Amino acid sequence: MIKAGIIGATGYAGGELVRILLGHKDVEIKWYGSKSYIDKKYAQVYQNMFELVDEKCMDDNMEQLAKEVDVIFTATPQGYLASLLTEDILRQVKVIDLSADYRIKDVAIYEEWYKIEHKSPQFIEEAVYGLCELNRDKVTEQTRLIANPGCYTTCSILTAYPLVKEGLIDVDTLIIDAKSGTSGAGRGAKVPNLYCEVNENMKAYGVASHRHTPEIEEQLGYAAGRNITVTFTPHLAPMNRGILATEYASLVKRADGTYPTKEEIRSVYEKYYKKEKFIRVLEDGVCPETKWVEGSNYVDVNFVVDERNHRIIMMGALDNVVKGAAGQAVQNMNLMFGLPETEGLELVPMFP
Amino acid sequence: MIKAGIIGATGYAGGELVRILLGHKDVEIKWYGSKSYIDKKYAQVYQNMFELVDEKCMDDNMEQLAKEVDVIFTATPQGYLASLLTEDILRQVKVIDLSADYRIKDVAIYEEWYKIEHKSPQFIEEAVYGLCELNRDKVTEQTRLIANPGCYTTCSILTAYPLVKEGLIDVDTLIIDAKSGTSGAGRGAKVPNLYCEVNENMKAYGVASHRHTPEIEEQLGYAAGRNITVTFTPHLAPMNRGILATEYASLVKRADGTYPTKEEIRSVYEKYYKKEKFIRVLEDGVCPETKWVEGSNYVDVNFVVDERNHRIIMMGALDNVVKGAAGQAVQNMNLMFGLPETEGLELVPMFP
Amino acid sequence: MIKAGIIGATGYAGGELVRILLGHKDVEIKWYGSKSYIDKKYAQVYQNMFELVDEKCMDDNMEQLAKEVDVIFTATPQGYLASLLTEDILRQVKVIDLSADYRIKDVAIYEEWYKIEHKSPQFIEEAVYGLCELNRDKVTEQTRLIANPGCYTTCSILTAYPLVKEGLIDVDTLIIDAKSGTSGAGRGAKVPNLYCEVNENMKAYGVASHRHTPEIEEQLGYAAGRNITVTFTPHLAPMNRGILATEYASLVKRADGTYPTKEEIRSVYEKYYKKEKFIRVLEDGVCPETKWVEGSNYVDVNFVVDERNHRIIMMGALDNVVKGAAGQAVQNMNLMFGLPETEGLELVPMFP
Amino acid sequence: MIKAGIIGATGYAGGELVRILLGHKDVEIKWYGSKSYIDKKYAQVYQNMFELVDEKCMDDNMEQLAKEVDVIFTATPQGYLASLLTEDILRQVKVIDLSADYRIKDVAIYEEWYKIEHKSPQFIEEAVYGLCELNRDKVTEQTRLIANPGCYTTCSILTAYPLVKEGLIDVDTLIIDAKSGTSGAGRGAKVPNLYCEVNENMKAYGVASHRHTPEIEEQLGYAAGRNITVTFTPHLAPMNRGILATEYASLVKRADGTYPTKEEIRSVYEKYYKKEKFIRVLEDGVCPETKWVEGSNYVDVNFVVDERNHRIIMMGALDNVVKGAAGQAVQNMNLMFGLPETEGLELVPMFP
Repeated sequence: MIKAGIIGATGYAGGELVRILLGHKDVEIKWYGSKSYIDKKYAQVYQNMFELVDEKCMDDNMEQLAKEVDVIFTATPQGYLASLLTEDILRQVKVIDLSADYRIKDVAIYEEWYKIEHKSPQFIEEAVYGLCELNRDKVTEQTRLIANPGCYTTCSILTAYPLVKEGLIDVDTLIIDAKSGTSGAGRGAKVPNLYCEVNENMKAYGVASHRHTPEIEEQLGYAAGRNITVTFTPHLAPMNRGILATEYASLVKRADGTYPTKEEIRSVYEKYYKKEKFIRVLEDGVCPETKWVEGSNYVDVNFVVDERNHRIIMMGALDNVVKGAAGQAVQNMNLMFGLPETEGLELVPMFP
Repeated sequence: MIKAGIIGATGYAGGELVRILLGHKDVEIKWYGSKSYIDKKYAQVYQNMFELVDEKCMDDNMEQLAKEVDVIFTATPQGYLASLLTEDILRQVKVIDLSADYRIKDVAIYEEWYKIEHKSPQFIEEAVYGLCELNRDKVTEQTRLIANPGCYTTCSILTAYPLVKEGLIDVDTLIIDAKSGTSGAGRGAKVPNLYCEVNENMKAYGVASHRHTPEIEEQLGYAAGRNITVTFTPHLAPMNRGILATEYASLVKRADGTYPTKEEIRSVYEKYYKKEKFIRVLEDGVCPETKWVEGSNYVDVNFVVDERNHRIIMMGALDNVVKGAAGQAVQNMNLMFGLPETEGLELVPMFP
Repeated sequence: MIKAGIIGATGYAGGELVRILLGHKDVEIKWYGSKSYIDKKYAQVYQNMFELVDEKCMDDNMEQLAKEVDVIFTATPQGYLASLLTEDILRQVKVIDLSADYRIKDVAIYEEWYKIEHKSPQFIEEAVYGLCELNRDKVTEQTRLIANPGCYTTCSILTAYPLVKEGLIDVDTLIIDAKSGTSGAGRGAKVPNLYCEVNENMKAYGVASHRHTPEIEEQLGYAAGRNITVTFTPHLAPMNRGILATEYASLVKRADGTYPTKEEIRSVYEKYYKKEKFIRVLEDGVCPETKWVEGSNYVDVNFVVDERNHRIIMMGALDNVVKGAAGQAVQNMNLMFGLPETEGLELVPMFP
Repeated sequence: MIKAGIIGATGYAGGELVRILLGHKDVEIKWYGSKSYIDKKYAQVYQNMFELVDEKCMDDNMEQLAKEVDVIFTATPQGYLASLLTEDILRQVKVIDLSADYRIKDVAIYEEWYKIEHKSPQFIEEAVYGLCELNRDKVTEQTRLIANPGCYTTCSILTAYPLVKEGLIDVDTLIIDAKSGTSGAGRGAKVPNLYCEVNENMKAYGVASHRHTPEIEEQLGYAAGRNITVTFTPHLAPMNRGILATEYASLVKRADGTYPTKEEIRSVYEKYYKKEKFIRVLEDGVCPETKWVEGSNYVDVNFVVDERNHRIIMMGALDNVVKGAAGQAVQNMNLMFGLPETEGLELVPMFP
């Protein structure tokens, strides 16, 4: 059995890690870390875990934890892990970080967008960006540190990736309009996240300034083979879970004056995703809906070509706390421990 | 492998049966019956099943189905199974009926409340009321026909059962005020179930006339040892899943003028439910919430005594499409095939 | 023009007072009191008021305010007004208190249920309980201090009042099961009121201990002509606005062995409410729905008799921030200033 | 008093017309037309109107209606009014059409996008496109026929209009990503509009094919002074009311290599909208939210410039059944009858 510890177990992503790991036959959770609820029973914080989890919440002692478990999941605020991580810890335990601390290779960009100083930049190079469908060959039993991708970024990148990689779209025209359920805002007690403020409401936020932007740009930049700048607009939607990304780009005009056809585009999606268990390219004419992936590790993608202006509308949907956080973290863990990638993740989406 | 057929696979309860059975290691679904969608791919009706279910919807041919499978689940309108069931079918296949056709032993009461003629009353006697926690000894490998309990009834009965059975409450004062998510209303296209009619709205319906009333009365009557009459008021709540039953009764005054204490009441709940995997008696002071059981087969129960008027408020919460329908059906199936009762039902509640 | 000041203008009830008073032709708001947002523009706290309200939030200075306005509305935490109110203030200005400070005549009961010491019990006797439909004769131009009723209490009392007053129900059997939208929980930033905690969830809370209980008991006790004890259970529902009260009682058996008929009961409701603009006794068979009164000052009531056990189910619905708070406060203000009672309150319910 | 008739009074837009006109001091509704509910009391279809509307629903007899009223509102399916309208009717009564029948000047485009034959193209030329803020000079007491704009179109056009008109954005790059509440889908009983299908879900639909596209293109084309093609993607959001449009375009690079500054852009918005009662240009940094305009005739707009790629993100929010339908229709009516444009429309947005 893999022994796992969670730091930040009482946030929504931490709670989902617990839900998923309880159903994972090769893992046992040994540490429910939560600074806010030390010594309180975990099942009193999340009553859905009553009679399922008997443990109390523990303080965040990474050094001790490193000795007791095989893998640590950190679902913590930005900068927190960077301030604690040491070579000594990494020698003893694998770390899967759900925060953004090691996602961005250029520390200056991290510090600019996150407005904090990075306390352990020496580990950035080593950290593997854990988007398994793109980086599977780098997530191995030798990997010590995973930067688990963000929720918006996972959805945004996977929705456009094959077309960027194959050069079918003009990546300079890429616009990402994303809609997220409210669990993405976390469990902190803030007025804007109160029920009455979110319910019956739609709004954009973080316009042209959201911190997932450079992460998307870095990863799609690798696919494009050059630096890129995208427009990314997140929106808050009145639902618990789910991200829908609607992405727009101009198709690339070829030397002969033609544009990629619908069939070519579909074949490119299938080239990259047909073999992927967790990415479903929907049938022609079917738009992804967040409800169809709720509770599961799937990303549903599809596209429509607007023949009138040679533009493509790409759409992707995932559950932000599963494939956008905890599920993807477990997917990485599976690869890091030589388990089947889908172990514990064969979650059937719940409808309604 | 147990071969299963579902008639009514495209209703919400049918869809949940599919979700649960896909995760059940001993079952394979061989027949997705749906009169409304014959020849349409099941995953086109429920896109959450894309790449998970490849089959098409089939017509409802019980006779053929009886030859091909080991168990048939019927998630069909009232009266439908009663019009089709034959001794010949029951000789070949086990039937678990999610409709009300065989739940009520007195056919006159069934016909009065359901306003339809019962077409096969000869099977009522044989049918076992499949509330496993009460009737476990009757759900055996010999059982041919299960009347799977209603959603409201499961919640209402289990919430009060121990106190009725032990005579701690005056059952003539029992009032059940239940609140249900909208999936309980089914997937039929009706104006009152449209999003804009249900959202931001609470209402009672079927007041003093809901058809789950006689089912509750019959089962709690067995516990009380006599005929009883209860007041049952269902309400429609703006959420997808979940039933919360708030139940009121007067505590019985004993010969010495005392009333049962909180401790006595708790010990009675534990006597009946401590050993029950799927019933969780919450800690003192914690009220059940539907969200804490969502997606799972749990029923959470608790109570508060109002010392001022010697009344008890009992509360129970379950997921109406799991423990209130499909989950309970699978629980019955497990018992009927000699499997562990919890097989395929170790579903961790999803939060948020 | 009546000059009005609001203390607690940035809570939900305060915000609704602003909405209603902006449409009241005889009132101008001179003071937007909010300790939490001093010097911030009111329209930056509630952006719906952009270009409608230009004023900034002010500190709570009752003495100064008393000199500048004709009426003060206090939508403040329990105990706050009681700690500030003086004879000097009341000599200068009318006060309509939306908190509970002067609702309960027996100060010991107040202190027991609210767990705070009452700082100005000398004004309790003078305060008029402003449930206009019951106390209209006491709300006059001479009235200085109004205790504006609670949201649950307004709904609970009005739903049962005629039958209690006329002795048609056994008030000792009265059980009130109430469901409220989340605005009733206020705008404070607390985890249990976050979107993800409330959405897709139903729960009871404050069972057998909610502070609106003694208020209901006092008022219905006056109607009954004696002290009474009721069971009151509030529930939190996933919607912004609205309270639905479902109330249960046994009909009184008369000397001749008969019970009140449906027709008698209806005629009693009409006797009391036919002339009431803001109470609508619905047609036979129609259950109140909170959505039908949203945004308006209406209370919709109706009932069903369960002939099987001689019990009545009474139902009432209102908008908790209008008739349950701000609307009722304006209704009281109208009476206190000799205006038509409905002035500014002819709000048509919004659907959907 | 203006006598008004409504055809299609039992749809959501029709219901909202009733709500607004009941508060309009110069109008009385004489005809509640509804083919689906002939002879049923209107208040039994919309119980919020109980004791407010006593009339029954009438059949759709335009010829008779033309004789009895001064203005007819048609909130009917596409093609319906076109099949009934005659010169004789228009000689007797003003008509405000909430359907799309006369919105598009080029009948071929109408027929192509709506897939129906236009039965009375002779009135298209005369019909005035009733977006008052743009066409106010054409909505006069002489106007006989108004084509009331669509909900998405009103929001989409007004959000971008000043910048298109002044040539600050490259209109060929314009992308509109719109999110709508479910009332926009109408009150028809269809499975995709059921509560459980919409709730907790986000999806795009009508991608690259929605019928509001040519309407947007025609109107913004007038502003641009040439034919344009835009990308418009509607989404269904889990809320009753509200449209949020997020619009993207590249800023135009000037001959000197500079781009319009934030200040220039703001001054252009203010040039067009400062004087407009119903358009609120929000303060810098504030994103429109649908909840802030709910129940009102306001459109809230704002923008953010992404300096990194010289792109602008424009945002607009309105209530689809008010400014997107019934409110705008009343605004047109006011102008057609020489009343103040805001009469009956001073609706304060409701929050929460």
